[in-house]
Amino acid sequence: MLVRNLKEARAGARNVLSSGWESARLLLKDDAMGFSFHITVMYAGEELKMHYKHHLEAVYVLSGEGSIEDLATGLVHRLEPGVMYALNEHDRHVVRPRTDLVTACVFNPPVTGREVHDETGAYPPPQTAAEAEAGRG
Amino acid sequence: MLVRNLKEARAGARNVLSSGWESARLLLKDDAMGFSFHITVMYAGEELKMHYKHHLEAVYVLSGEGSIEDLATGLVHRLEPGVMYALNEHDRHVVRPRTDLVTACVFNPPVTGREVHDETGAYPPPQTAAEAEAGRG
Repeated sequence: MLVRNLKEARAGARNVLSSGWESARLLLKDDAMGFSFHITVMYAGEELKMHYKHHLEAVYVLSGEGSIEDLATGLVHRLEPGVMYALNEHDRHVVRPRTDLVTACVFNPPVTGREVHDETGAYPPPQTAAEAEAGRG
Repeated sequence: MLVRNLKEARAGARNVLSSGWESARLLLKDDAMGFSFHITVMYAGEELKMHYKHHLEAVYVLSGEGSIEDLATGLVHRLEPGVMYALNEHDRHVVRPRTDLVTACVFNPPVTGREVHDETGAYPPPQTAAEAEAGRG
């Protein structure tokens, strides 16, 4: 049994800061759960364009408000506590947090913790994640 | 892209009531994400003995307080907001909510939505989940 907490994760190597968001990875690939689990904050006022070509992701809003735009359809969905979105078709999307958005995120396959978004807003596929480490800020 | 919310899930067929807990299944096997995602409430004062022999589960506490006992080691861990436990070894465990415990849960493999806990506190393996339907309360 693994027992971890957000406060410790935020203070250590499990926390990843990037442009417009930060993510505390409570479970990663090494934990062998078959998914990774993150508490991610997307910052107010940002416009986060993402496309996870190699991962499926589900996001559940814990606090904050904003919107998500599905770039395939142009549909915009309101984000608020209790809303979940799932990128079941590797959907290209833009998240626009009106306030800081705190979310619980699940990735399949699990991320290794070393990925950064590339120029298309994707994480690399699992087999090349190690290569991405060199580019990590 | 799938977009769902807890309020609607709780009011419909996605909500499952059982003895000592209820669970709103925002993602199930049919969604083909490779995991299922539930918002589960374990009720204050209950003693929930569980053993998921066929699934791995991660649980993140959103609100409430209680404890989890690892039956293999006897260790007891405090549960409060921000704490996550992961049953990475199909750990036999007891959750004792002191107040209602609201949690976000991820199962791998995904549950179908038709399982009930059997007499050992397990969900059946995926291939026999359909058989369990007949026993659903």
